[in-house]
Amino acid sequence: MFVVMAVGATEEQLNAVRGAVLEEGLTPHENRGGARLVVAVLGEGGAWVERLADRLSVLPGVESVTKSSRPFKLTSREFHPDDTVVRVGDIAIGDGSLTIAAGPCAIESRDQLFETAEAVRAAGANLLRGGAFKPRTSPYSFQGLGLQGLRFLAEARERTGLPVVTEVMEPGQVEHVAEYADILQIGARNMQNYSLLMAVGRIGRPVLLKRGLAGTIEEWLMAAEYVMSSGNPNVILCERGIRTFETAYRNTLDVTSVPLIHQMTHLPIVIDPSHAAGKRWLVPSLALAGTAAGADGLLIEVHPRPAEALSDGDQSLTPAQFADLAVAVRGVAEQVRAIHATRGPAMTAGSRA
Amino acid sequence: MFVVMAVGATEEQLNAVRGAVLEEGLTPHENRGGARLVVAVLGEGGAWVERLADRLSVLPGVESVTKSSRPFKLTSREFHPDDTVVRVGDIAIGDGSLTIAAGPCAIESRDQLFETAEAVRAAGANLLRGGAFKPRTSPYSFQGLGLQGLRFLAEARERTGLPVVTEVMEPGQVEHVAEYADILQIGARNMQNYSLLMAVGRIGRPVLLKRGLAGTIEEWLMAAEYVMSSGNPNVILCERGIRTFETAYRNTLDVTSVPLIHQMTHLPIVIDPSHAAGKRWLVPSLALAGTAAGADGLLIEVHPRPAEALSDGDQSLTPAQFADLAVAVRGVAEQVRAIHATRGPAMTAGSRA
Amino acid sequence: MFVVMAVGATEEQLNAVRGAVLEEGLTPHENRGGARLVVAVLGEGGAWVERLADRLSVLPGVESVTKSSRPFKLTSREFHPDDTVVRVGDIAIGDGSLTIAAGPCAIESRDQLFETAEAVRAAGANLLRGGAFKPRTSPYSFQGLGLQGLRFLAEARERTGLPVVTEVMEPGQVEHVAEYADILQIGARNMQNYSLLMAVGRIGRPVLLKRGLAGTIEEWLMAAEYVMSSGNPNVILCERGIRTFETAYRNTLDVTSVPLIHQMTHLPIVIDPSHAAGKRWLVPSLALAGTAAGADGLLIEVHPRPAEALSDGDQSLTPAQFADLAVAVRGVAEQVRAIHATRGPAMTAGSRA
Amino acid sequence: MFVVMAVGATEEQLNAVRGAVLEEGLTPHENRGGARLVVAVLGEGGAWVERLADRLSVLPGVESVTKSSRPFKLTSREFHPDDTVVRVGDIAIGDGSLTIAAGPCAIESRDQLFETAEAVRAAGANLLRGGAFKPRTSPYSFQGLGLQGLRFLAEARERTGLPVVTEVMEPGQVEHVAEYADILQIGARNMQNYSLLMAVGRIGRPVLLKRGLAGTIEEWLMAAEYVMSSGNPNVILCERGIRTFETAYRNTLDVTSVPLIHQMTHLPIVIDPSHAAGKRWLVPSLALAGTAAGADGLLIEVHPRPAEALSDGDQSLTPAQFADLAVAVRGVAEQVRAIHATRGPAMTAGSRA
Repeated sequence: MFVVMAVGATEEQLNAVRGAVLEEGLTPHENRGGARLVVAVLGEGGAWVERLADRLSVLPGVESVTKSSRPFKLTSREFHPDDTVVRVGDIAIGDGSLTIAAGPCAIESRDQLFETAEAVRAAGANLLRGGAFKPRTSPYSFQGLGLQGLRFLAEARERTGLPVVTEVMEPGQVEHVAEYADILQIGARNMQNYSLLMAVGRIGRPVLLKRGLAGTIEEWLMAAEYVMSSGNPNVILCERGIRTFETAYRNTLDVTSVPLIHQMTHLPIVIDPSHAAGKRWLVPSLALAGTAAGADGLLIEVHPRPAEALSDGDQSLTPAQFADLAVAVRGVAEQVRAIHATRGPAMTAGSRA
Repeated sequence: MFVVMAVGATEEQLNAVRGAVLEEGLTPHENRGGARLVVAVLGEGGAWVERLADRLSVLPGVESVTKSSRPFKLTSREFHPDDTVVRVGDIAIGDGSLTIAAGPCAIESRDQLFETAEAVRAAGANLLRGGAFKPRTSPYSFQGLGLQGLRFLAEARERTGLPVVTEVMEPGQVEHVAEYADILQIGARNMQNYSLLMAVGRIGRPVLLKRGLAGTIEEWLMAAEYVMSSGNPNVILCERGIRTFETAYRNTLDVTSVPLIHQMTHLPIVIDPSHAAGKRWLVPSLALAGTAAGADGLLIEVHPRPAEALSDGDQSLTPAQFADLAVAVRGVAEQVRAIHATRGPAMTAGSRA
Repeated sequence: MFVVMAVGATEEQLNAVRGAVLEEGLTPHENRGGARLVVAVLGEGGAWVERLADRLSVLPGVESVTKSSRPFKLTSREFHPDDTVVRVGDIAIGDGSLTIAAGPCAIESRDQLFETAEAVRAAGANLLRGGAFKPRTSPYSFQGLGLQGLRFLAEARERTGLPVVTEVMEPGQVEHVAEYADILQIGARNMQNYSLLMAVGRIGRPVLLKRGLAGTIEEWLMAAEYVMSSGNPNVILCERGIRTFETAYRNTLDVTSVPLIHQMTHLPIVIDPSHAAGKRWLVPSLALAGTAAGADGLLIEVHPRPAEALSDGDQSLTPAQFADLAVAVRGVAEQVRAIHATRGPAMTAGSRA
Repeated sequence: MFVVMAVGATEEQLNAVRGAVLEEGLTPHENRGGARLVVAVLGEGGAWVERLADRLSVLPGVESVTKSSRPFKLTSREFHPDDTVVRVGDIAIGDGSLTIAAGPCAIESRDQLFETAEAVRAAGANLLRGGAFKPRTSPYSFQGLGLQGLRFLAEARERTGLPVVTEVMEPGQVEHVAEYADILQIGARNMQNYSLLMAVGRIGRPVLLKRGLAGTIEEWLMAAEYVMSSGNPNVILCERGIRTFETAYRNTLDVTSVPLIHQMTHLPIVIDPSHAAGKRWLVPSLALAGTAAGADGLLIEVHPRPAEALSDGDQSLTPAQFADLAVAVRGVAEQVRAIHATRGPAMTAGSRA
C-alpha cells in the first residue's frame, strides 16, 4: 500500500499516518520524491489492507492511498518515482551516463589482474570486475583464489583508482567480502538465495543483482525487494541472458528487460553481454544493443590472453578489443541519451498518450 | 559439399566438375564470389559424399573440396562469401544501409491504408507493410480484407511510390499475391510450412521469412534453404521474438540472432520490434537495440488511430511516434555502420584472431 | 456465448433463440448433451455480446446465458459437456479404452510397410500409422513416397483390417489424402497453418491434430476450433513433446496436458512418445506415463529394422519391443481406468470440492 | 577417469593405483560394484589425464582405464554400476519399491502438523514432509515457523514413527536442521547454491536434491556431484517441474527425466507432482504418470483444510484425496515393477540391442 502525502503535509499529519500503520503491527517505509512524500506499507495482502486504507484515506494531509496489486513495493516506481542513482566513489550508476565495468572473469594471479586492470582503465572503464569466489557448475573446475583474490583486488583498486565489484556466494562471507569490495555481486545462480539476499541487504555496500537464468522479471524484482526490505536501497540490476531453447549461443540476452525495468522500477540496470553470448565475437553487437536500449552500464570480461584463461576465456575480449568497443558504446550512448532521458512513468505516460 | 574452383579455372574444367556431380544424380549450384567460383552439391549425407569428394578433389582447376557438416548449404557463407543484397525498386536490403518498412498490421480500409502510407513515407519509410490475409489465433478474429486488401495495397504503392510487403498464407495464393506485392512475407507460424516455402521459392519475388516462435536459428536457415533450393535466392530473414518463459511482454526479441546470422549466412536480417514487444512503448528501445546490433532493416507497425485498430493496436505506433523513431534509428545506424562494415567471415576472422 | 435451453424447451422456443442469433448476423451452433441443448454463438467479443445476452436471457425456454471468457468455444466443455468419442471402423477413441496406433515413421517400401503392419496388428495395435508426405527440416532429406505411399497404405489396410492415419501437408492435398486415409494427421509444424486446418475442417474424416513445439494449450485448442468451426467435429489431439531448454532428449513430453485437456475440452487426447523422446529406450517409460495420466491412445513408431530406417530410426521400436510395450500399457490402462472414468467437469468438480 | 580393477586384483595392485593417483596430486574414490572395484579419479581435464591414463593402464591388476567425457563422475553409472539405495530407518529409497513422502507444504502449527502426520501415516505414507524454513518469492509472505517448526517435526516423528524430510536454506543452518531431520531437502532455487551443497555434503544425513526450474539434467547431476564429492553418497534426486513457455499450469513435469536419470546415474529419483502442477486436481494424474515412468518415490502435499493453508493451499490434497491416491499409485507401481526392474546400463543395453 502506498500513501501519498499532500504537498505541504505537516510532520504532525505524517505522524498520524505512521501511528496508524504501526498500530496495525506494520512498518512504514518513506521516500521523498520531488515535492511529495510516499509512505509504503509492506506486507502480504490480508484483511488489514481494506481496514488500513479506509482509515488512512480520511486522515488530513493524505492525498491518496493506493492498494498496489504488484507484489514488489520498495522497488516500484509508485513508491520511488525518481530514478535511483547508485554512487561509488566518483561514479554514478543510473544518472543517464554509461558505466563500464571490465576485468577478468576470475582473478588468476596478481600479474594477470594488474595487467588487465591497467589496460581497462586506460581504455576508459569506470569499474574493475573480477571474481575471487567463483560458482562453477562442476566441483572439479577452478573455484577462484578466494581471500587471496580479494587482496589482489583491493591492491588493484589502489593502483588504478577503479572501484571494484566482486561476487559473494554465501551469507557467512558477506562481511568479509564487503571489507574489500565496493560493490557486492550476487550471481545468477543465487538470485533466489534468500538468506544471501538478506545478508547483503544488511550491509552498507551497493549490490549488483544478476538475473537468474530462469528468473522472470517479477521474480528478479522480488529478489531486489529482499535486499531493499532488509535495509539496503542501493541495488543495481544486471541482465546476463536467460535460458531458452536456442543453443547457437550460450544464453538469450533479454534486451527488452531494459525498458521494462526502467518503466516498472527506479533501479538502474546494466547488461552483461559476455556471459549472455559465451563467444567473444558476439560481445560487441550485444553491448551496442544493450546500450541503445538504454542500459545504465555494461559488464565486460577482458583478459590479456583469453586463450590461457582459467574460466570463460572464449567470451573474454582482449584489451585492444575492449578499447575499440568502449569507444563504440560511448558513441551510441551519446546518440540515444536524449531519447531515454525521460524514462519510467514519464516515458510510459508519454507513449501511452 | 562445396567445390571451390581455382582462380582462373577454365570453363572446361568447370564442366568436368559439373559432369561428375550430374553423374552422381545430383545437381550443382554455382556462385561466383569475387575471383572464385563455388559449386555447391546439395543432398543429404550418404555414401556418395566420400566417393564424389575423392573424385572431384583430383580434377584440374579444383582448389578445394569441403564436406560441409552444417545442414544448410545455399544459405551458408561457405557457398556465398559476399553479402546478398536484395533489391526492390530503388531499395537495397543488405548493403549496409537501414531499410525501414512501416504500415498497419492489417489493412482495414482504403482510407486507413492511404493515410498511413503517406504518413510513413513522409517520415522516411522505405517500404510499406500491411496484411491483406491475416493468420489469427482465433477463427473468430478479423481475418483481413483478402483480395480487396491487395488491391488497396497496389493502389497505395502507386500513390506513394513505396514498394509493398504483404503476407501469403498458402501455396494456392502465392501467384496471386505476387501479382500485387513486391516482397512476399512468410509469417512466423508458417516458418516450417514446407509446401508454402517451396511455392514462394518458385516465384520471382523476394521473400521475407519470419522466424517461428520456437524456431532455432538452424531451423530458420533450413527454411530459407527450402526457398533457395527451389530457385529463389532473394531471402530476407526477419527476427520477431521467440517464445520463452517470460510473460512481462509478448515475445523475447533475440537480438543475438543478428550477429549470428551475419556470421553464418550471407542473407540480410531485419527486426520486427512491434510483434516482439506487443506494447507500443517498448518498440523504440527494441528498434534501437536491433539497429545497434547491426540489423539491415526494421519492420514497424504504424496506425493512424491505434485504439481503433482491428488487430495489434496495442503495439502500433502513431505516425508521429514513428517519425521520431525513424530519426533516432537512422542516427544510431550511422553511428554503428563502420563497426558492422566487415561482418560475416571477416568479422569472425578478425575477432577470433 | 452459450445459451443453455431448459429441459423440455420446445422447438418453437429454440427457434426464437436461433432467430435472435441470426438477426445479429451470427450463426448458432447446437449441441445436445444429456437432457439439455446448448446453443453456442461464435464470434469475437464486441458490442453485440451484451445486447444479445440481454435479449436471449429473457426468452422463454432459456435456462441460462453464459458470456464465455475463454476464446475457445466449440472445443470447450461448456458447449459439449460429454466426451467426444471419435469412431473409425470398429475403433472408438475417447470412450475410456486405450487406442494404439503403430507403424513406421515414413513408408519406405511396400514390403517394409506390410511387414510392419502385420507385426503391429499381431501385437494388438488398433490403427496403422505411416507417413507418405514427410515434413523434413532439411530440403535434402527423404521427403516420403507421396502418392505411391498412400496406395501402399490403402493396400496395407486391406490386408490387415487396420484403419490408417497419415499426414497431410497442404490444403491442395487434403481431398486426395482423404481418399486413402481414415484419419488425417496435421503435423506439429502445421498446428497454426490455418488454411490447412480449414481445409481438413471441410472434410468428412477425423483429424489428428499434433501440438506444435511451441504451442500453448490454448493455441492448440484454438487450432482445433478452426477445424471444428469449419464443420468437422471429429478432432483428436496429440501431445508429442514441447520445446524447452533441456537437450538431453529431443522434446519434453508434457504429460500434464492430458488431465488439462480432459478438463478444458471434450476431445480425446493421445500421446506420441516416439517423437517426444527421440530415443528408442525412452519410449516405454513415456508411453506408460502417458497412459497412467489418462491418455486415450498412443502413437508409436515401429520399424522392422530401425538401423535401416530412412527417418527417425533412433526412436523406432522393433516389432518385438512394441509387442512387449503393448502388453504393459494395456495393463496400466486397465489399472487406472476407474480413476479417470469421471473426467472433465465431474473430475474437476469432485477434486475441487 | 575410471580405473576398473580386474576380478581378483590384489590389495597390493590396488595400492599401486592409489599411489599413482596421489602422486599426481589427485584423490582416488573407490566403489565396489559386484565383483569389480572401480577407482574414480576426479578433477577437471588437463594434461594429467593422458599422462595418468598411460601410466595406470599398464599396471598389473588394472582391467581398463576410461577417460570419461561426461563431467559428472561419482554420480555416474560408470563409477557405480549398481543402484544406490538410500536407507532411512526401515525405508529404502531406490530398491524398486515406491516411497511416498507426504505432509504440509509449511508447518503452520503443532495441531496442523500432527493431524496431517497421522492422516498420511494411516493412508500409507512412508515419510513425513513439512517445511520449517520456507523460501518464498516475496519477502512479505509467510517464511515458516523456523526452529519451532523443526521441534514440531521431531515430535511428529515420535508420535507417528515416520522419518521426516525438511528443507535447509543456508550453510549455517545445516548442522542445526540435521539434528531434527532424517533427510535434508535442498530446494529448487538452491540447486546451484554450491556453498550449501558442500555443507550438506559434509553431513551424515541423506539429501533430497530438487531440480532447479531451469536446471538441465546435466547441471542437476553436477549439483549432486558437489554433494557426493564433499563426502555424502546418499543423494535422492527430485523432479518438480521445469519452467517452460506453458502457463496453463505452474511448471512442466519432466517425466522423461525419470528413465534418463536411471540410465545416466545410480541415484534414486522421486517426483513432486504438487509443486509441478500447482493445482490439486492435476496431482493424481501426474503422480500416476511419474510412478508409471519408474520413479522411486513421490512427494505429495497434504493439508487437512487446504483452503486455510498459509502456503500452496491450491495444490494440497485433503487427507481423503491422498488416501485414494496412495492406493492408486501403489497399484500402478506393482503393475510396472517388472518392466523397470532392469534399469540403467542393463535397460540401455537391452533396448539398444
